[in-house]
Amino acid sequence: MTKLRWGMIGGGEGSQIGPAHRFAAALDSAFEFVAGALDHRPEAGRDYAQRLGVPADRAYGDWREMLEGEKGRKDRIDLVTVATPNSTHHEITCAFLREGFDVLCEKPLTTTVQEAEEIVRLARETGRICAVNYGYTGYPLVRQMRAMVAAGDLGAIRLVKAEFAHGHHADAADADNPRIRWRYDPKQAGISAQFADCGIHAMHMASFVTGQAVDRLSADAVACIASRELEDDAMVNFRMDGGAVGRLWTSSVAVGRQHGLTLQVFGEKGGMAWAQEQPNQIDWTPLGQRTQIIERGAADLYPEARRASRVTVGHAEGMTLAFANIYRDLAAAIRGDDTGAPLFPTAEDGLCSMAAIEAVADSARHDGQWRDARPPMLRKA
Amino acid sequence: MTKLRWGMIGGGEGSQIGPAHRFAAALDSAFEFVAGALDHRPEAGRDYAQRLGVPADRAYGDWREMLEGEKGRKDRIDLVTVATPNSTHHEITCAFLREGFDVLCEKPLTTTVQEAEEIVRLARETGRICAVNYGYTGYPLVRQMRAMVAAGDLGAIRLVKAEFAHGHHADAADADNPRIRWRYDPKQAGISAQFADCGIHAMHMASFVTGQAVDRLSADAVACIASRELEDDAMVNFRMDGGAVGRLWTSSVAVGRQHGLTLQVFGEKGGMAWAQEQPNQIDWTPLGQRTQIIERGAADLYPEARRASRVTVGHAEGMTLAFANIYRDLAAAIRGDDTGAPLFPTAEDGLCSMAAIEAVADSARHDGQWRDARPPMLRKA
Amino acid sequence: MTKLRWGMIGGGEGSQIGPAHRFAAALDSAFEFVAGALDHRPEAGRDYAQRLGVPADRAYGDWREMLEGEKGRKDRIDLVTVATPNSTHHEITCAFLREGFDVLCEKPLTTTVQEAEEIVRLARETGRICAVNYGYTGYPLVRQMRAMVAAGDLGAIRLVKAEFAHGHHADAADADNPRIRWRYDPKQAGISAQFADCGIHAMHMASFVTGQAVDRLSADAVACIASRELEDDAMVNFRMDGGAVGRLWTSSVAVGRQHGLTLQVFGEKGGMAWAQEQPNQIDWTPLGQRTQIIERGAADLYPEARRASRVTVGHAEGMTLAFANIYRDLAAAIRGDDTGAPLFPTAEDGLCSMAAIEAVADSARHDGQWRDARPPMLRKA
Amino acid sequence: MTKLRWGMIGGGEGSQIGPAHRFAAALDSAFEFVAGALDHRPEAGRDYAQRLGVPADRAYGDWREMLEGEKGRKDRIDLVTVATPNSTHHEITCAFLREGFDVLCEKPLTTTVQEAEEIVRLARETGRICAVNYGYTGYPLVRQMRAMVAAGDLGAIRLVKAEFAHGHHADAADADNPRIRWRYDPKQAGISAQFADCGIHAMHMASFVTGQAVDRLSADAVACIASRELEDDAMVNFRMDGGAVGRLWTSSVAVGRQHGLTLQVFGEKGGMAWAQEQPNQIDWTPLGQRTQIIERGAADLYPEARRASRVTVGHAEGMTLAFANIYRDLAAAIRGDDTGAPLFPTAEDGLCSMAAIEAVADSARHDGQWRDARPPMLRKA
Repeated sequence: MTKLRWGMIGGGEGSQIGPAHRFAAALDSAFEFVAGALDHRPEAGRDYAQRLGVPADRAYGDWREMLEGEKGRKDRIDLVTVATPNSTHHEITCAFLREGFDVLCEKPLTTTVQEAEEIVRLARETGRICAVNYGYTGYPLVRQMRAMVAAGDLGAIRLVKAEFAHGHHADAADADNPRIRWRYDPKQAGISAQFADCGIHAMHMASFVTGQAVDRLSADAVACIASRELEDDAMVNFRMDGGAVGRLWTSSVAVGRQHGLTLQVFGEKGGMAWAQEQPNQIDWTPLGQRTQIIERGAADLYPEARRASRVTVGHAEGMTLAFANIYRDLAAAIRGDDTGAPLFPTAEDGLCSMAAIEAVADSARHDGQWRDARPPMLRKA
Repeated sequence: MTKLRWGMIGGGEGSQIGPAHRFAAALDSAFEFVAGALDHRPEAGRDYAQRLGVPADRAYGDWREMLEGEKGRKDRIDLVTVATPNSTHHEITCAFLREGFDVLCEKPLTTTVQEAEEIVRLARETGRICAVNYGYTGYPLVRQMRAMVAAGDLGAIRLVKAEFAHGHHADAADADNPRIRWRYDPKQAGISAQFADCGIHAMHMASFVTGQAVDRLSADAVACIASRELEDDAMVNFRMDGGAVGRLWTSSVAVGRQHGLTLQVFGEKGGMAWAQEQPNQIDWTPLGQRTQIIERGAADLYPEARRASRVTVGHAEGMTLAFANIYRDLAAAIRGDDTGAPLFPTAEDGLCSMAAIEAVADSARHDGQWRDARPPMLRKA
Repeated sequence: MTKLRWGMIGGGEGSQIGPAHRFAAALDSAFEFVAGALDHRPEAGRDYAQRLGVPADRAYGDWREMLEGEKGRKDRIDLVTVATPNSTHHEITCAFLREGFDVLCEKPLTTTVQEAEEIVRLARETGRICAVNYGYTGYPLVRQMRAMVAAGDLGAIRLVKAEFAHGHHADAADADNPRIRWRYDPKQAGISAQFADCGIHAMHMASFVTGQAVDRLSADAVACIASRELEDDAMVNFRMDGGAVGRLWTSSVAVGRQHGLTLQVFGEKGGMAWAQEQPNQIDWTPLGQRTQIIERGAADLYPEARRASRVTVGHAEGMTLAFANIYRDLAAAIRGDDTGAPLFPTAEDGLCSMAAIEAVADSARHDGQWRDARPPMLRKA
Repeated sequence: MTKLRWGMIGGGEGSQIGPAHRFAAALDSAFEFVAGALDHRPEAGRDYAQRLGVPADRAYGDWREMLEGEKGRKDRIDLVTVATPNSTHHEITCAFLREGFDVLCEKPLTTTVQEAEEIVRLARETGRICAVNYGYTGYPLVRQMRAMVAAGDLGAIRLVKAEFAHGHHADAADADNPRIRWRYDPKQAGISAQFADCGIHAMHMASFVTGQAVDRLSADAVACIASRELEDDAMVNFRMDGGAVGRLWTSSVAVGRQHGLTLQVFGEKGGMAWAQEQPNQIDWTPLGQRTQIIERGAADLYPEARRASRVTVGHAEGMTLAFANIYRDLAAAIRGDDTGAPLFPTAEDGLCSMAAIEAVADSARHDGQWRDARPPMLRKA
């Protein structure tokens, strides 16, 4: 099978997200990295791309040059990943979709609901893939949880408890750290900091696993460090369209928590819990029975989880392999393979997150008043 | 040293709370169980008390008989524990306080703020001890956390995350189970179910450890099981008088969680986490350093924690020994021993819980509007 | 029910084992502490006993005085606990048995197999109880494991893995610490240090849970700290009389392990694991199925485990309550109660440990040659 | 940077080891998969290789054909991985080394010490790389442990406790399962089953981390399932050339353990513990201090560990990324990069394992008599 051709915008030298995408795209040998505009400094980007093996004529200085260069090629890229600063996602994604490219965009998809709706419309009109990188959904056991809910193992879902609370921005001296300061400055980061950065992962996870969308929410957001204008800690209560109650905590001042993404789902017939830091087990308790440990790689998993697993039971799998499942699903969708429904998140998911961000910010500004969390274009008639 | 004389009201045969108090009172050999009115059925109570070693003339048929019998004795009881149904706490506690007895009352102290204020006033007037049984505060490492905060190890406290979420009332068929049904029926249980039963433990713990009182709160309470009128799940956001932000989750439908009381405290200089189910360790992370495991029984604990520990490091200690620390502190206070300030919770704590229950219920009925959570008599001028 | 009368020899002020026995004996209010010879310094012992509430006339200066004083009383003690230095266990225990007292002796029961055999014979002749304090067998879930094996849940037992490895003697500077130095000096400690101190607990646990005795063993023992003559680390392989293979590791130089008593049992039909530091759960894996968490206090336990549990599920129980189960079983046996077979370890268990100590020491001196581990009087004809 | 050319022998369709190598080689985009002889059925191997993207002319029918085809090419492969049945490793590895290829061979390197010594000599003579795939040494925190020992953080190493005990061959009915039966049949598997399969990983890890070789050992090996001739459980005591004592347990009948590779290292100045199933943390206890959690990805790691880490702290990393570090080190060595000493295991390591296997088998047959565990060619004069 020949490899698909892949390009990336952003993810330049020294970034964390660049290698993460390259590892994930390379792992299954489904994609070949053939084009890139990796840096906002054209020469640095061209140089770095070539050092990574991109041919010189496809090592571009910026995304516009890349779009021009690629759109006319017979061997043009099959997928472009957009890993640039958030404020540029919309323009770049729209430009590539319009020229018929499939796109994987980093989260958050845009900076406003309106922009996200525009992308959703454009993806529908063009028929192109527009995926959004909620990479944690690639974990085999996250897909197992989704499959368990879908199969009715938990009965009707009553309650979802999601957390994404870490402690990496807990030092008050970070007020002078440029790598952190901008995140809490509305001029640079928009209307939300911690919820927009981490909270939407947890909220998307809640929707992904339960199959329910977030309808309404109420938020309490605070800046625990006085120098910040935007929140570094937030609690969001929500209601989902299938009847589930949601509770979501996100923080960047929870000293001692290294990552802190966890999901607990409680239904009529059982409850389960999963944590990203130890992602190879689910605690699953059928109502009235003992808690069982579900192991990644075990023979008793649902097909969605078995397919997403690459290593035998008992061996640890981690984030890179989860992320690679997003790319593998994209490859299958691009090729039109029929090997199980691809499970990558889409622009609709990105749009829901944008609506949630706006609702959270507005609710928090109004003492936690409940707000509609659905984007206008997805509200039911 | 002669033992103190102890009596109990309630805690009859088959109850869970009765043995818990007896074990805790007996453990240190500081109290002798000499009087009791253990059952609402006079004969059953007299019989059971005698089988437990109470002399026949002090095995009473009801609390009034006990009050009459004890108040005139020269060897009258030094402490009475009130472990009767919640609605009777106020009357019994007041009656014994008025006759000059020291009292340990089960939680919740009363059913209204007004009743609790009356008890606080009465305790002040009579100069008697009126303790309330928030027994989890007896754990050595809970006292270690309190001492760490007091010593400034965490700096100013930014955030408290408390949970008391279990899954023991998650079966919808419990609608027909009389041992559970009454808890969610406002006619029998009052204005709150899960928060009043478990949430107040978690909230008291937050205050006990941080040394801050809860000022204001906002609550989202739901009945996940349709047959219930009162909440089986609640999320409470709060603000404390020392500036800390609080987040408290309580649930009885979280299937798979056996007990679920946990506390996380995050300050300027570090964060820590403790869980009742594994109470012999604290995870403590000084800002910018590795997480450390603080072990109960270790030589590096604060005096408050060392004093509360009975077993050498590495051996498990559990709830009974925690609870026994409440009794040991009461014994010290009754005797006037000067061996470190007693740390048992008092009627003021019980009053604060009552005010919180009313605020939670009222906030929840009004879409989470923020409410004052301080009892009127403790509000600052 | 009137309390039984209890006395203790040893366990003076400042000792760890004294309070442990007093807490355990007091917890259920089954014993009253009425006599003691607590210290090798007569006056100190008399004084301490009286401060603990023992009447002056039964606060003895030494064990001989106590034996004389008690043997003629009508209200003589129902049980005496021997918690003196190891080398005195034999003489004291024999003396009290001969006068018809029931005895609970600390481990190790004696310093030689011969002495232990003498005690076993004496207990049989006199018909008195001679219990030995392997207190960890009082944990409810240890009894659950025993019941599971007895019920055949694991099928034939293939393999037992026992550990009791801690790190509290790992400092080479301990060569100058008198509280530690004597333990590794054969003149004071006999033929074994770490195995005799901790290893026999783990080995007894293996027998208690499987119901099998240790037949043969091979040992590798080393002194990791050069100043020591006796071992601070040992590995013992063994074979049991029901066909199980055993592997036992004990150490006092395993820095970072606080206590380190664990037991894993593997049979034809399943495997299970338990750890003293988190004693309220068993990991139980039926062959070919998921691992399940068995919770202390749950309704699905065997009667032996339910009876041994005092606190509701989800609350921690610890060592003191385990230890109290030994006393509770002794009280039942002394009273002749018929409430389930008492499960306290006996002189036969103490004797098996002595034989194992001698076999371990001898095997270790001979490059691990296999040795018979059964005491002569218990060998099959 | 152009990619290195990589080929594989074995690892055909349906194998587990094939994908593991392909993922690991692909991850960093350092190798391109250009040649293969993947199956003992020539046509199946050619077909599968082409489906994996190998050009038709380099999709070989067997390893001899591949050797012939590759040795004359200008663009011949830079590295060949040998993942065939154990009995063929020696012949294939020698053949490729002789023609000047660098080789990565699966473990165990050979079936005899003599064969392994021949490979070591050949590698030395030809100057080619001959690596052996002890992939667990690629975990960042395993390298951290090695660096900590090398830096003296633990002082002199006293004790190593290694385990590789799982329960995947615990069903007696496996006697009829051809995928398992052969492993315990000396005609097919040689002189050792579980030790040769898993034990050597744990023993290699002990050497890798401590920097000490195994000198002497004593083994107790048993077949817990009666139908087996070779051991399914073994305990090995050993002594290392730097003075450390070793204890190693390996089992395939430990029901409930999913993988069970763990390492504990205890030195004069501290102790540490690591487990493959949760590989992103080390428990590290400096003597006399609290246990600390060392996190993969943290800034405080040694360079060897930081270099081996691809994902930010708090995210899980797993086996594939560990394995990829072996390939990355091989790429660096092949290219002659000077970016830290490559840490891949070599033929000498493979040889030591073969000597250990023979010593274990011989010791176990002779009641655990101690045996020299060093291969003749590596013994000191």
